[in-house]
Amino acid sequence: MDYPSFFEIAKKYKVILLDSYGVLKNHKGLIEGVQQTMEFIRGENKIFRVLTNDASRSPRQQIEKYIEIGLPGIELHEMITSGMMAKQFLEQKVTHGKIAYLGTDNSADYILQSGLEHIPIRDVDLKNTDDISAFVFLDDEGFDWNSDINKTVNLLRRKNMPVILANSDKFYPVNRYDVAVATGGIAKLVENMLGKKFIHFGKPDSQMFMYAYERIVENGPIDKKDILMVGDTLQTDILGGNKFGVQTMLVLSGNTREENVDLQIRSSGIIPDYICRSILE
Amino acid sequence: MDYPSFFEIAKKYKVILLDSYGVLKNHKGLIEGVQQTMEFIRGENKIFRVLTNDASRSPRQQIEKYIEIGLPGIELHEMITSGMMAKQFLEQKVTHGKIAYLGTDNSADYILQSGLEHIPIRDVDLKNTDDISAFVFLDDEGFDWNSDINKTVNLLRRKNMPVILANSDKFYPVNRYDVAVATGGIAKLVENMLGKKFIHFGKPDSQMFMYAYERIVENGPIDKKDILMVGDTLQTDILGGNKFGVQTMLVLSGNTREENVDLQIRSSGIIPDYICRSILE
Amino acid sequence: MDYPSFFEIAKKYKVILLDSYGVLKNHKGLIEGVQQTMEFIRGENKIFRVLTNDASRSPRQQIEKYIEIGLPGIELHEMITSGMMAKQFLEQKVTHGKIAYLGTDNSADYILQSGLEHIPIRDVDLKNTDDISAFVFLDDEGFDWNSDINKTVNLLRRKNMPVILANSDKFYPVNRYDVAVATGGIAKLVENMLGKKFIHFGKPDSQMFMYAYERIVENGPIDKKDILMVGDTLQTDILGGNKFGVQTMLVLSGNTREENVDLQIRSSGIIPDYICRSILE
Amino acid sequence: MDYPSFFEIAKKYKVILLDSYGVLKNHKGLIEGVQQTMEFIRGENKIFRVLTNDASRSPRQQIEKYIEIGLPGIELHEMITSGMMAKQFLEQKVTHGKIAYLGTDNSADYILQSGLEHIPIRDVDLKNTDDISAFVFLDDEGFDWNSDINKTVNLLRRKNMPVILANSDKFYPVNRYDVAVATGGIAKLVENMLGKKFIHFGKPDSQMFMYAYERIVENGPIDKKDILMVGDTLQTDILGGNKFGVQTMLVLSGNTREENVDLQIRSSGIIPDYICRSILE
Repeated sequence: MDYPSFFEIAKKYKVILLDSYGVLKNHKGLIEGVQQTMEFIRGENKIFRVLTNDASRSPRQQIEKYIEIGLPGIELHEMITSGMMAKQFLEQKVTHGKIAYLGTDNSADYILQSGLEHIPIRDVDLKNTDDISAFVFLDDEGFDWNSDINKTVNLLRRKNMPVILANSDKFYPVNRYDVAVATGGIAKLVENMLGKKFIHFGKPDSQMFMYAYERIVENGPIDKKDILMVGDTLQTDILGGNKFGVQTMLVLSGNTREENVDLQIRSSGIIPDYICRSILE
Repeated sequence: MDYPSFFEIAKKYKVILLDSYGVLKNHKGLIEGVQQTMEFIRGENKIFRVLTNDASRSPRQQIEKYIEIGLPGIELHEMITSGMMAKQFLEQKVTHGKIAYLGTDNSADYILQSGLEHIPIRDVDLKNTDDISAFVFLDDEGFDWNSDINKTVNLLRRKNMPVILANSDKFYPVNRYDVAVATGGIAKLVENMLGKKFIHFGKPDSQMFMYAYERIVENGPIDKKDILMVGDTLQTDILGGNKFGVQTMLVLSGNTREENVDLQIRSSGIIPDYICRSILE
Repeated sequence: MDYPSFFEIAKKYKVILLDSYGVLKNHKGLIEGVQQTMEFIRGENKIFRVLTNDASRSPRQQIEKYIEIGLPGIELHEMITSGMMAKQFLEQKVTHGKIAYLGTDNSADYILQSGLEHIPIRDVDLKNTDDISAFVFLDDEGFDWNSDINKTVNLLRRKNMPVILANSDKFYPVNRYDVAVATGGIAKLVENMLGKKFIHFGKPDSQMFMYAYERIVENGPIDKKDILMVGDTLQTDILGGNKFGVQTMLVLSGNTREENVDLQIRSSGIIPDYICRSILE
Repeated sequence: MDYPSFFEIAKKYKVILLDSYGVLKNHKGLIEGVQQTMEFIRGENKIFRVLTNDASRSPRQQIEKYIEIGLPGIELHEMITSGMMAKQFLEQKVTHGKIAYLGTDNSADYILQSGLEHIPIRDVDLKNTDDISAFVFLDDEGFDWNSDINKTVNLLRRKNMPVILANSDKFYPVNRYDVAVATGGIAKLVENMLGKKFIHFGKPDSQMFMYAYERIVENGPIDKKDILMVGDTLQTDILGGNKFGVQTMLVLSGNTREENVDLQIRSSGIIPDYICRSILE
């Protein structure tokens, strides 16, 4: 099938918001040719932001990772992560005690840096949970799934506390065919066990869009009609963009494949304004 | 049980956000004594906003209704409704064709006022849906439930289009004991029939909070820690406020009753910063 | 595409279980040619049963309806309905008080005939519910959707009682394109409002299969491998048959269309042993 | 509170069906005093069956375990497990290829003993899945949660096949306070990742009840009104028994505690015919 050119469409907008995984990179590394697209965006003086549901690394670390795989030049204010939203929430709402977490120590170091202590679930003493004041799902790595997921269930059965989910993605691709269960999948299991709903951060929630928008308009007014969100996933990037009121483009270089894009749009009812093969053409 | 005083707590905040139903009014009309609370808020020079999921009336009509039941003085910029969010979305995202709807003509007149035509579902011709470009659930009144809900299901089976829900509340109280199915309940039925998720507006989504916040900070910076959201429903007011990062107060004058407040907090995991009997004390 | 012949497959089985709607009849009446298939089944001395989720009519009335549309000869013991299961449950479990219902008076007359009184929801006095001991969803007709669905919600909020669903189908076809919300859809709305799960009867539950099986083996042993269930719906006929352990055949003359049968099997994971165009070939 | 005596109630019934965990034993072993109850049941010449959702051991092994903890005398025909139902299904429906599984090798040995080969998920080669014809969730032990759950997701993404769940319990108690995620919880995670529903065995499904009933009536007719199902869990034992049409007794010696039994009955709408403290009094 014939798809329109990303370049032609992008020219019409003042602001380009890009998802990370499936748009700029994939399981093999940087998507080849993305450097030229970035040069085009810079050359056309578009305002540009990366909006990613990845909470396993700090924004700074994500930028360093992009440099490592061959895409230098993303600045700190251009990287917006669901981890930043979770961090902000914890700083505003949790004022005492320790924050327990499931994830790598690295993910914890960034999100939980504040006056408060944090503690991995494996080190929590279930018999003495007085000082645990919140729980965060950070990453699908850095813990033993069997013992630590069970321990999480029991901590949350024993004590009622705010539980937040720094990344609500249920899975991520690990190669052309396969996926891995992500933090959102693990949290959903725990939600099911407890019959509760946790506080979710990340797209499709409007928060990250609003965060980006607020900072962009500090430099002068921008109409939402002049903003284009580009992503590979209907349920996060496109639904979130649609709901926030910006224009949306689905690219077929990640989660959504050409062979079933029509079906997925029809069955989800989530309709992007544009569909392009990738951001390379 | 002994609950703290709303007045004592409110004094500590610069901004007071109030839910409408269950806080200011109930099925019988204005909650007696609310006038004094409003005078207190005005007297203390607090910034004040009403945040309501009611989309059946325009903000202006809601203010007029408050005057009618005995609470004058709410200004237009102080009334924020989920209908405003839905209206904004439609204006930004739907650019051609007709918008079909389920609800009263009055609710449609406000939300669907724009260059576009709107048409109640009863007048839609299912054999010719080419010009229908979006669908909105507006209100639980103004249509025949049997024929018009069925017709809505079939329109959305025949044609894929953005479907939005201007108020996601599932029910509302009609007297001390009973409730009525609200727009959100009807939309959920249709979602179930189609296996789709529509675009929901209203609390607990951050949008209304963000809308209020953005406009408040135009007059000078306000920290989110200086904002108090007061509501009677954990799943909308308190979850939304918590997630947005402001302080939250649950009042027991509406949906949540003193006899089961503990249970509901424990079973939902949604924890307000304060619990007060009402905004009268 | 080329599908195998129903006749060739049916020959291999001793017992043929047929769904009603979408297999024997459709929205226009009897499916033309079904008479010949019935003659074949009779001629081959197969044991035969109709298994239908229709609870709006008694088995006798359903047989009379078949005579009316041109298919005489179905005997009473050959007609098994989800209404029979519901009736049996109520007779065994409800021993006093009145049974309230949503549906036509005709559906109530059959299912609720026992020593107990029954009362349509419209006649229930919400202020005095002492004598109401159970509630049944019977049909999508025979009541005012707006007032009676709301009244049902409030009855079940006020008083805890067994609630049963005589037909869990969510919708039924009304013409080649359109459907109507069935009892199961209405019950799901009420379940959602209350946060409860009711007791569901009808396929895919094993009960109707077991009921048929028990009576068939009274005349001599039959292995489940010699039984073929034929239906047009994966989620009820095929899932139910698979789970009960008989062989299953999906026909494309009803709910499941040739153009998306592959997709529906893939996305549901419900796999029939055979797929045929209809029972006519 | 005062509860009626199990003994007094049991006297009125001809058949006593008992759940295993929470009724006869708990995390510490046999519930002390259960031997006397068993003697009573035998002495009164009641027909007796154990109905358990435990699929991790064969019926024979479960009986041996009871002997080991001090309750000899349960005969093989008296032990009915969800594993037996799953085994039966697989024997009837899967006729070629290998059956992949998640669980201990012991659980596999029993359920998958038939002409077919079985293979633990860790040994499956995702690149060559041609010979895998079905998948079974057997137990929460015997595999690496992280790698093997992910591998299961990918196997089921790559190839469509019948997936069955030999035990749908979501969790089981490990001490007075804590639980562990059971097979049903893990399967639910995988269902969520795939957007599919697997075939579930075990209570509350009617199958185990029907299996017990069929065999009991071989020795003479028994009315369902003369059967009492005793269990500690509303959602499995009581719902299943209610739906099958027998009388039900909830005991407070397991999952359901005295302090919240009222609430759980009210919020679930599942109503036992009797509530007793345990089967000891």
